[in-house]
Amino acid sequence: MTTQTSAPGQLDEAALDLVFRNARTHNGWLDKPVPEALLRQAVDLAKMGPTSANASPLRLVFVRSPEAKERLRPALSAGNLEKTMAAPVTAIVAYDTQFHELLPRLFPHADARAWFAGNAALIEETAFRNGSLQGAYLILALRAVGLDTGAMSGFDKAQVDAAFFAGTSAKSNFLVNIGYGDESKLFARSPRLDYDEIATTL
Amino acid sequence: MTTQTSAPGQLDEAALDLVFRNARTHNGWLDKPVPEALLRQAVDLAKMGPTSANASPLRLVFVRSPEAKERLRPALSAGNLEKTMAAPVTAIVAYDTQFHELLPRLFPHADARAWFAGNAALIEETAFRNGSLQGAYLILALRAVGLDTGAMSGFDKAQVDAAFFAGTSAKSNFLVNIGYGDESKLFARSPRLDYDEIATTL
Repeated sequence: MTTQTSAPGQLDEAALDLVFRNARTHNGWLDKPVPEALLRQAVDLAKMGPTSANASPLRLVFVRSPEAKERLRPALSAGNLEKTMAAPVTAIVAYDTQFHELLPRLFPHADARAWFAGNAALIEETAFRNGSLQGAYLILALRAVGLDTGAMSGFDKAQVDAAFFAGTSAKSNFLVNIGYGDESKLFARSPRLDYDEIATTL
Repeated sequence: MTTQTSAPGQLDEAALDLVFRNARTHNGWLDKPVPEALLRQAVDLAKMGPTSANASPLRLVFVRSPEAKERLRPALSAGNLEKTMAAPVTAIVAYDTQFHELLPRLFPHADARAWFAGNAALIEETAFRNGSLQGAYLILALRAVGLDTGAMSGFDKAQVDAAFFAGTSAKSNFLVNIGYGDESKLFARSPRLDYDEIATTL
């Protein structure tokens, strides 16, 4: 497939369709394996997106094996159970509540660790905001490398944290099913707000 | 510019560079106006990204006029002041804490408003998470249409809310300077974590 940009330094229409306009949240999955190399490529793209003070709090568990899926099962809400158990991969999108301990390496030109150390509310807010930004970069990066996604908030975070993050400083944020979507299982697309309902120019 | 995808349904290398790998957080801005049409295009792309129950809490103010920039000025941290006042546009990325009132329209196939009504903690968490996801979609959409960005958390949210959102249900989340970046003002790129520090496969 050859595509053409509409102007230098812009994505072309096919690329915009792939990442934003035609991509859908999938509920059914084709019996087609997800190459490990594509997950790595998507993570290595997503991690380049901006975060506050380069804090980079995103942490991920790719749940792939039947054993790991069974650990996830009891935490899933009823509406998300079947599709998640059937997905080739489910990413637990999490954030590190001790991200600031890495700032001497990630933000070496200032003592950014000191901005956060001892301020639990600022740590939590920064980790949640920037871990969510990075989770969004990941969704779009997965689409960019040719995978389909289905993100979800319907699960018991405390159960997931106990099952996957016990003894660590990571906390779960949301889940993303990953695979090649079965278009026959898509719901009708829900409407979006109009531009003028979202944005004002002053 | 003609680009070529590496496989059907994937972005090509030039597109991945534009959106993820070569894009930078800018601190200086060329004297080149930002077309209103590109801001609209970016919002209309970003709003297609997934949110929980299609909640779509993102709200934006594009601060463009000198008068509006002066309203923003007192809320900016010292390190963000000069570059933000100089940026052609500064987006206030906010979220609507009454987003659930629109769910009968945005998620018509279930009574999703009832999932949130009266649960202030769930409303705040959902608005913050999904408003942040949509803010990330916006950053990548702005890059996709050929603009440069510089996102920031360093500002006084209460001051911004008082100056721009008084009497509304919107709350500020972060800021994004928008324009055509001056590459001579870029800082050296900060390091990212290795794949294995971010992700585990089970």
